Amino acid sequence: MASNQSNVEYLKPFANEDLHFSIISKQNQIEKWFRNQWAKYPPPFYSSIDIRNAGFKIAPVDTNLFPAGFNNLDKELEFLYISAIQHFMERISPEISKILLITEDHTRNKFYESSIESLTSFIRKSGFDIKITKLIDLSSNLKDLSKTNGFLSVDGFIPDIIVLNNDLSGGMPEYLNNIKQQIIPNKNIGWNNRSKTDHCEYYSNVADNFSRLIEIDSWLIEPYFRNCGEIDFQTKQGEDCLIYNAEKLFHIIQKKYDEYEIKEKPYIMIKADSGTYGMGIILINDIDSIKNLNRKQRTKMSKIKGGNKLNKVILQEGIYSYEKFKPTNHVAEPVIYSFGHNLVGGFYRMHDLKNNSENLNSPGMSFHPIPFKEACLSPNLDETIFSETNKFYIYGVIARLAILTASKEIYNTE
Amino acid sequence: MASNQSNVEYLKPFANEDLHFSIISKQNQIEKWFRNQWAKYPPPFYSSIDIRNAGFKIAPVDTNLFPAGFNNLDKELEFLYISAIQHFMERISPEISKILLITEDHTRNKFYESSIESLTSFIRKSGFDIKITKLIDLSSNLKDLSKTNGFLSVDGFIPDIIVLNNDLSGGMPEYLNNIKQQIIPNKNIGWNNRSKTDHCEYYSNVADNFSRLIEIDSWLIEPYFRNCGEIDFQTKQGEDCLIYNAEKLFHIIQKKYDEYEIKEKPYIMIKADSGTYGMGIILINDIDSIKNLNRKQRTKMSKIKGGNKLNKVILQEGIYSYEKFKPTNHVAEPVIYSFGHNLVGGFYRMHDLKNNSENLNSPGMSFHPIPFKEACLSPNLDETIFSETNKFYIYGVIARLAILTASKEIYNTE
Repeated sequence: MASNQSNVEYLKPFANEDLHFSIISKQNQIEKWFRNQWAKYPPPFYSSIDIRNAGFKIAPVDTNLFPAGFNNLDKELEFLYISAIQHFMERISPEISKILLITEDHTRNKFYESSIESLTSFIRKSGFDIKITKLIDLSSNLKDLSKTNGFLSVDGFIPDIIVLNNDLSGGMPEYLNNIKQQIIPNKNIGWNNRSKTDHCEYYSNVADNFSRLIEIDSWLIEPYFRNCGEIDFQTKQGEDCLIYNAEKLFHIIQKKYDEYEIKEKPYIMIKADSGTYGMGIILINDIDSIKNLNRKQRTKMSKIKGGNKLNKVILQEGIYSYEKFKPTNHVAEPVIYSFGHNLVGGFYRMHDLKNNSENLNSPGMSFHPIPFKEACLSPNLDETIFSETNKFYIYGVIARLAILTASKEIYNTE
Repeated sequence: MASNQSNVEYLKPFANEDLHFSIISKQNQIEKWFRNQWAKYPPPFYSSIDIRNAGFKIAPVDTNLFPAGFNNLDKELEFLYISAIQHFMERISPEISKILLITEDHTRNKFYESSIESLTSFIRKSGFDIKITKLIDLSSNLKDLSKTNGFLSVDGFIPDIIVLNNDLSGGMPEYLNNIKQQIIPNKNIGWNNRSKTDHCEYYSNVADNFSRLIEIDSWLIEPYFRNCGEIDFQTKQGEDCLIYNAEKLFHIIQKKYDEYEIKEKPYIMIKADSGTYGMGIILINDIDSIKNLNRKQRTKMSKIKGGNKLNKVILQEGIYSYEKFKPTNHVAEPVIYSFGHNLVGGFYRMHDLKNNSENLNSPGMSFHPIPFKEACLSPNLDETIFSETNKFYIYGVIARLAILTASKEIYNTE
């Protein structure tokens, strides 16, 4: 059973409380605004959102539309996942009964296997029949397509809808275009088509709109970013572009830090523009460290998932995590899960070897469930704006901004 | 904060485990079946369902479509209520933003006031604007109807939808028919129009269908009943009918008790056919007690809510409650709440002066929240079929059968 306390608290105080106060005190407007947004931009089937909380600033730093890690969700909250899945499917069509789940090919990864097991169990308990197949195994079933009027049939199982849990990093097989069943999330939103830069541009727009609604500086919920194409870390091709953009980025972050009297030093995350799984990411504290990347770092930045070549990067403002897990004092960052626009909880990702600026999504990380009672839909004005209930409401809002961003991306690919 | 243990356990063992086992082991089919039912029969906005659990038999004994008692729900689960309300309204129309809540007139009842306060808070936190009015105060606003093209406006507030929390025991004001806004739940489902007999007949049909699905005897989830019209307890008019039907009912219950080797004595609840608030209910253990009703009992059975005359009754098989609250050993009966078809928890109703056959809904009752972790959507096959998780899943199924029954009633009035 999950503990009722998250045991995660702010590392240090911060002067600017605008963000917290504005979100906590404007729940009614915020919920109304989201309602209107979802009506225009239907949310993707599921997502997991990595959030970084620097106190004065809270922002999503990664939005995964093909989430894994379902095994890390709190088992006690299973009814939430079931209810959210039922709602999502009901919204598409009450006729849906059979679901095909297309997974990653690397299902010998035991963490991933365990995630798929959990996801499958949630879907089955929601009252659907489910069959699982790796993307790689799917093509052999395609000979049947003509016999079934274009409906994909896998060993006689004709799904009503297809759920992708494969991020299509390896490219989208052409035959997915020929299948008559609906595929969720939209197959055009795989990493073959999508870039972090696109996502950040959409997010920037969403953050602007939302900030206008609650009257805050949008920087408080948005990491600044710039991008560079045609990079080759091995040959140093494109290094000028990288340095130029990093200088610009350090400059505008420093200006904001000055404005808000933040004493920390700005830093930047350089990320593969279509990378996942925490691969292809380095942290730089200054311009020199770009010039002085060592061989190991250059190698790391040359390959991303599936062995694809990394040739575009995004430079993203690093956001310190001011949350620590007690009593170990490990740095913790929240990861929020959703089905549709329903937040269903999540966990803190922690790493005992990482400091408060580093990417925690790396081998050695551990997880601690976000306690249910702090679920993300209802702030409490009787508590301080820093209470867990209120903090998690804020996370829920930030996570939904990221989901809305993905919804807009999908909307525009359709 | 709610305790994680409900502290409610079975009073005694029972031989027949068909009901428990069939429900627990068939979650997938059950969820599928409900999905199809909701697609045909949209659920009412909200409900509270009183359930009695005799171990071998579990059934709803009262289905309230204008529920009070929201103040007794677990505050920690507020996000569930919010999420369910948002879903319900979204399903009607994403355009809904302003809600008028029409309450009972007796708002000086502090329990009722407190319930309305909680309900209002849930709705507001869901992102809706809400205004509250008593039914009795509404007529004064009707002069505006012509000015607003038939849309009800209360002090300049023009709701997008109207929520009834008045059960219309006092009759439905004609003007509700002239208002253009949608009224939920359907105004034709008030006690002015509805009878317990109708509900029980619909329930019987739902229970039959469901029992066929999971292959059980439908008696295991249904109280037998018969009804009598034109009763006057003061003048004894209709007593013959009452005795005749009571004899029949005792007989068929006894036959079932024999079949299942139940050692208890059958009993019958006589209830006003359109009564609420636990009024107009007596318990009889044998035919003689009908003949020998004393003056106090006869008076009690002559009036129901709003001072209306009681002239029709339903005779309903009494269901023993085999659940006791520890450590006091008070008899406990579960009450389950819903918005739409979403179960959102509930509480145990207890009474320290009542035994395991009596109606607990009477002055002196107390409440204990049903613990969240036992929420009603997900059984656990790794636990015994009597575990809390599994018991609450069964309650969730029984409650949904009652909600579905109300949905069918509404469907047929439209």
